[in-house]
Amino acid sequence: MPLVIMKFGGSSLSDASKMKLVASRIIAKKNIGNKNKVVVVVSAPGDVTDELLEMANKITSNPPGREIDVLLATGEMISISLLAMTINSIGEKAVSLTGPQAGILADINYTRARVKKINPKKINSLLSKNNIVIVAGFQALNSKGDITTLGRGGSDLTAVVLAAKLKADLCEIYSDVEGVYTTDPRLVKDAKKLEYISYDEMLEMAGSGAQVLQSRSVEVAKKFCVEIHARSTFSKNHGTIITNEKKIRRKKMEEPLISGITFDKNQIKFTIVDLPDIPGVAAKIFGSLAKIGINVDMIIQSAAVNKKNDISFTVSGRKEVKKMQRELDKIALEFKASQVVCDEHVAKISIVGIGMKSNAGVAGKMFEIIYKNGINIEMISTSEIKISCIVNEMNMVKAVKELHKGFGLSKREAV
Amino acid sequence: MPLVIMKFGGSSLSDASKMKLVASRIIAKKNIGNKNKVVVVVSAPGDVTDELLEMANKITSNPPGREIDVLLATGEMISISLLAMTINSIGEKAVSLTGPQAGILADINYTRARVKKINPKKINSLLSKNNIVIVAGFQALNSKGDITTLGRGGSDLTAVVLAAKLKADLCEIYSDVEGVYTTDPRLVKDAKKLEYISYDEMLEMAGSGAQVLQSRSVEVAKKFCVEIHARSTFSKNHGTIITNEKKIRRKKMEEPLISGITFDKNQIKFTIVDLPDIPGVAAKIFGSLAKIGINVDMIIQSAAVNKKNDISFTVSGRKEVKKMQRELDKIALEFKASQVVCDEHVAKISIVGIGMKSNAGVAGKMFEIIYKNGINIEMISTSEIKISCIVNEMNMVKAVKELHKGFGLSKREAV
Repeated sequence: MPLVIMKFGGSSLSDASKMKLVASRIIAKKNIGNKNKVVVVVSAPGDVTDELLEMANKITSNPPGREIDVLLATGEMISISLLAMTINSIGEKAVSLTGPQAGILADINYTRARVKKINPKKINSLLSKNNIVIVAGFQALNSKGDITTLGRGGSDLTAVVLAAKLKADLCEIYSDVEGVYTTDPRLVKDAKKLEYISYDEMLEMAGSGAQVLQSRSVEVAKKFCVEIHARSTFSKNHGTIITNEKKIRRKKMEEPLISGITFDKNQIKFTIVDLPDIPGVAAKIFGSLAKIGINVDMIIQSAAVNKKNDISFTVSGRKEVKKMQRELDKIALEFKASQVVCDEHVAKISIVGIGMKSNAGVAGKMFEIIYKNGINIEMISTSEIKISCIVNEMNMVKAVKELHKGFGLSKREAV
Repeated sequence: MPLVIMKFGGSSLSDASKMKLVASRIIAKKNIGNKNKVVVVVSAPGDVTDELLEMANKITSNPPGREIDVLLATGEMISISLLAMTINSIGEKAVSLTGPQAGILADINYTRARVKKINPKKINSLLSKNNIVIVAGFQALNSKGDITTLGRGGSDLTAVVLAAKLKADLCEIYSDVEGVYTTDPRLVKDAKKLEYISYDEMLEMAGSGAQVLQSRSVEVAKKFCVEIHARSTFSKNHGTIITNEKKIRRKKMEEPLISGITFDKNQIKFTIVDLPDIPGVAAKIFGSLAKIGINVDMIIQSAAVNKKNDISFTVSGRKEVKKMQRELDKIALEFKASQVVCDEHVAKISIVGIGMKSNAGVAGKMFEIIYKNGINIEMISTSEIKISCIVNEMNMVKAVKELHKGFGLSKREAV
């Protein structure tokens, strides 16, 4: 009997009527064709996770990770129990399992634990008795017997690791969007839903602001060849299949140059001016930032002039600007840099596509489109399947629209 | 090192400032004298349990007990994690444990599981490392690995079973009232706080409307000789000690006739008129009511006249009147009774006291006080240490006040 994993996000579970819709989709999936075994993974309902964090913030700005995990785990427990009740009330058998009960075992880190092992005994036993099994995403058990959580978006990861371990025939991730688009349809009206996207493209898209799937879940899906169907809870339409490159190449005679355009307004650019051009400076700076938990994104070092140079870098997330500035002022003082310049009005635009591997002209085309529209590019970074540019945030929307058109991604042009 | 159990109810945990107050009381307790080991048991904050039940009610009127228990268990998990954070933020070490983590093992019933065994290994290990241990009350683990709950007020039970198992030197139950009173101080202004009350009296009081402690927890406390100090979170005053009769007798040269007066407005009286006077009728009636989960309180059967008699009984709780009436109509039909009379305007008044065991005049005094005030007694029931009367609910307050005065319980009169 085929086994299906269905994962539902919090916006699909935010009230009783949505729960009923989700329950009906699960039951329909169980009963089609030769019948399926179904394992459901759920996030916390609606804004519950944020509300719980808010409660903790009222108490302390620095709560122990162990206790935050106990607190946050309650969100998914609300979802599993309510969803199991909903399915039972419609007349199908459903049983809820917390992450620990489902045998999701993790390392000893709190708030961003990594899955170490799955013990699927309980799930398999419940499935064999014809139950729909509802598993709390995002949470796990560590070797001390503590409840831990897998970091933001961790329910996607739960779904994928279960799909891998249980050798699921299908792994569907339901949310309030129809799939992965060439760019954000709220910004570009003729954005096109992608039928397929490779793991690597999806990773670049996720890292560039597209919030469809948690990055770690895509990495794990790639590692274990779990094909994901990202689709909408509120529509019967086919969504987007995230799979390996070979399968996509087989499907399409000639793949388009790029699959999508992503953007991220939540960026800051720092420039440390007049640093001494001696070895170890960059290591020291980025080491200090890493220590206070700041993830640097793009980095540019200018060519040295008079044994001095500038280092510019971007950080995703504008929340801790003051903390970063304090740290950078200390570093500037230590290395006798002349000043630290902070620009909070930048945005990152990226084009992503496996097609660009074999096509040298893509970068040039991107820069030309941006240039022709009178927009200045402040920083550039490239990978095998992604090119990112930093521009002033007021030019972001225009740049995205023009790139979408220029690379032929609009509905009317692309197939 | 002495071990103290401190249990805090939901109204002591309903916001961050109350959490901080509770945390400071816990830390003070840990640090007084030769220092104490402290195990804290908590309920769900404020109205969280009711809010969770409301969520379930929006989905189905008949949810599986197993899933209700998963849902409700989240309430106490919120309390343990937030309280542990609060204590940590003040600088003392605290670790939270869910009921299952704390080794509270129960039978396989859902929603009202009974504690079978305590495995205190984890608690003892944390205590030995100088941690304050915060345990989620009300919840347990069954032999299937399921989360279960112990029924309303189950956190009191958790505190008492832990006190028994860990041989605690002190078991304090904190709530928003100062202790056990001679009667409800909201009704009778000169009600007096009792310094001591016996387990048996407390059980009769709890069963008669006084909501200070859950009955089962008092039964268990009596069985294992756990002395309970019921007191207020919001005051440093001494509360009420619930202990055994001998200890109280030793303390008081001559105990007062009665300890308290309780009342319950949430009563219904049913009378089935003209039942045949043949064996087995009562068994059948009360068997049927038990089957649909209705707990009958007081019962009176009239003397037979013309081979017919009436049976009157009271039920505590006015929620399911219609269901009860339907069931009784069926029974009346089966036994050819002439009618079923329902009176929703009755109240129960009880006087409770170990002193009445050795004093035959107590009942007579009670009836006389009520009679002198022109109040009709509709039903009477007695036990060794309690006498209860059913009166019309509009006379309840007057009867309570007069009994309180008549038995010398007012502050000015009693010592």
